[in-house]
Amino acid sequence: MKTIAILGSTGSIGRQSLDVIRAHRSEFSVSALTCGQNIALFREQLKEFKPALAVCAQKTDAQRLAAEFPQIRFMHGSTGILEAAVHSEGQLVVNSLLGMMGIRPTYEAILAGKDIAFANKETLVAGGSLIMDAIKEKGVRFLPVDSEHSAIFQCLQDHGGNPVRRILLTASGGPFRGYTREQMQSVTKEQALKHPRWTMGAKITVDSATMMNKGLEIIEASWLFGMPAEKIEVHVHPESIVRAAVEFMDGSVLGQMGNPDMRVPIAYALSWPKRLALTEDEDMEGGVVKPLDLCAAGALHFEKPDLDAFRCLALAYKAIELGGSYPIVLNAANEEAVAAFLSDRIRFARIGELVERAMELHRPAQIRSVEDILEVERETREIVLGEMK
Amino acid sequence: MKTIAILGSTGSIGRQSLDVIRAHRSEFSVSALTCGQNIALFREQLKEFKPALAVCAQKTDAQRLAAEFPQIRFMHGSTGILEAAVHSEGQLVVNSLLGMMGIRPTYEAILAGKDIAFANKETLVAGGSLIMDAIKEKGVRFLPVDSEHSAIFQCLQDHGGNPVRRILLTASGGPFRGYTREQMQSVTKEQALKHPRWTMGAKITVDSATMMNKGLEIIEASWLFGMPAEKIEVHVHPESIVRAAVEFMDGSVLGQMGNPDMRVPIAYALSWPKRLALTEDEDMEGGVVKPLDLCAAGALHFEKPDLDAFRCLALAYKAIELGGSYPIVLNAANEEAVAAFLSDRIRFARIGELVERAMELHRPAQIRSVEDILEVERETREIVLGEMK
Repeated sequence: MKTIAILGSTGSIGRQSLDVIRAHRSEFSVSALTCGQNIALFREQLKEFKPALAVCAQKTDAQRLAAEFPQIRFMHGSTGILEAAVHSEGQLVVNSLLGMMGIRPTYEAILAGKDIAFANKETLVAGGSLIMDAIKEKGVRFLPVDSEHSAIFQCLQDHGGNPVRRILLTASGGPFRGYTREQMQSVTKEQALKHPRWTMGAKITVDSATMMNKGLEIIEASWLFGMPAEKIEVHVHPESIVRAAVEFMDGSVLGQMGNPDMRVPIAYALSWPKRLALTEDEDMEGGVVKPLDLCAAGALHFEKPDLDAFRCLALAYKAIELGGSYPIVLNAANEEAVAAFLSDRIRFARIGELVERAMELHRPAQIRSVEDILEVERETREIVLGEMK
Repeated sequence: MKTIAILGSTGSIGRQSLDVIRAHRSEFSVSALTCGQNIALFREQLKEFKPALAVCAQKTDAQRLAAEFPQIRFMHGSTGILEAAVHSEGQLVVNSLLGMMGIRPTYEAILAGKDIAFANKETLVAGGSLIMDAIKEKGVRFLPVDSEHSAIFQCLQDHGGNPVRRILLTASGGPFRGYTREQMQSVTKEQALKHPRWTMGAKITVDSATMMNKGLEIIEASWLFGMPAEKIEVHVHPESIVRAAVEFMDGSVLGQMGNPDMRVPIAYALSWPKRLALTEDEDMEGGVVKPLDLCAAGALHFEKPDLDAFRCLALAYKAIELGGSYPIVLNAANEEAVAAFLSDRIRFARIGELVERAMELHRPAQIRSVEDILEVERETREIVLGEMK
């Protein structure tokens, strides 16, 4: 039985992690849960999973729940989240916190010798070298929850430890697939928020439209699998059936395919190297995972992305190439620019321009701690805000 | 360094095995080679690879070469092939012999504790239970050279040993893809021999047109991976880029892809679990393996095969279901019927009819030895010849 701590248990990844755990109760116990604002759902989770430690963002919420659940230890705020991350009972920490607040708990959990299932993009985009050094030193497992990285990880479960020639990441292409740089100049917010395939949050939908999401994934993959960026290729694959593929030195390519269902990579991260039955287990919230029907999928298409039109993707490659603090700048500038776009302060094409400008104005910094990362973040946001004036 | 014996070294698989070995000389040494009629090529191979044992089909050829190569021990005929199979120095035996003559050397090599790389279809189609029992008893490795089975094997290199839900084998569909059973009645030999994708021998080209080749592969896969036939599905995939795929119990599908190049599965069987560099090594006969370009491939299509039109495929499923000696009947009746078709004695659609008739007339037999297999073979050929009178 594996003991799991979930940071962000009321979010989408947290909820689906608990769905998987519920369907496979004999495999897991839950040691700690943390939540933000959704106290009603958190209360249900506490009742059902009875963690030893529960953490709320707000002190008042923690106090109120503590009265209801005398068997559970309650904490709050970032101290509480850190305690959940390093909590002695947890063997695996699921980090599904959003944004930069996810880095420190991951880092501390690694130093405490925990295995990590991570869904927090910033952890590797901004903290890559810091995190990977700590993982190496502590010898913990670092398991991707993100579907593309899980796909690569699955393709690499080859026990020969064979060197990889190339990693292929697929992208749906978003709403502006096939658009030229010119055409991208006049797209609207409404268009950018209308993803042809998935309903997601506004930030990630815009990142998908600019293809910055794929750029950030390249950076993550580069750290996670120790591959230089030029060996990580993106293919636009509008059907989104092949999630990623790995080419070995013998020319053989292994690809991971499936219907989009986050419970598959979540379950794999939770129970690796074992796979849980998700296709036939009747007890899963939201129903069982639907098996892939390649024949029903019609045709699968693959095309090279247009790095001229999708400037953000080109900038991501550049950020890894420059290395050091540049990926932090890329990510922070993008967050600031997307926020500005979503509040109608800038037009769509300006997102990439602002990221590019922030990278031009950035003075490279040594990254030796989480504080160094946060400092580069802060500076970058100031630069972007300054440019928008 | 691994010591390799190749049965059938002047055939296509044998030659390509030596190409791979030549490009990776530090990995392999060659202990024994056997040939049929191509003495000129065999002489070159003996000069280059200097095996301890060489076997010719004809005694006169063996005697002639013995005079030229005094350091090599020469034998001939089936005794010689058996000696090469069990020869004390060989760690891995590559069996690329054609037809039923491949079974006994494989069986004897397993009993002698050798690992086997097998390209001989009959070994598992006809000898499945005998061979698999021997493998289990002796604990040897049985490595597929055939590209589809190598593809499945590669997808199963997952170190969790996770249960498989379904195996997908792809088929190009051959020249009669999309034909109805009606249309199949009037196809000509010329049409049947014109494969849309590959140039192969006449027998295998006809098997591809009837889809019997895929039927035989299902039987092999069923034995090799311990899967019931109903969990092995065939998808017609005219682009032939995805060779096979495996679906796990979590709904995740791993597929193997690549450009068609037999050196990839051959090298994998020779060096498993290690993969050899084939894409960038400049010393390979026939050039290096061309990396896959999914974007250049255009669209990938998958469709369910028409089991009514492709009767042979349906019969193969039936043969595994009936089990015992039925797969031997399927294979032998098909060989006899295809030979008759190629010599203009019967029309195309009659192939499946004859196989079906042979299965109807067959009295199930216990298979306890290679002799039992050969007896069922002989009876089946008589039945088919009788039906054609």
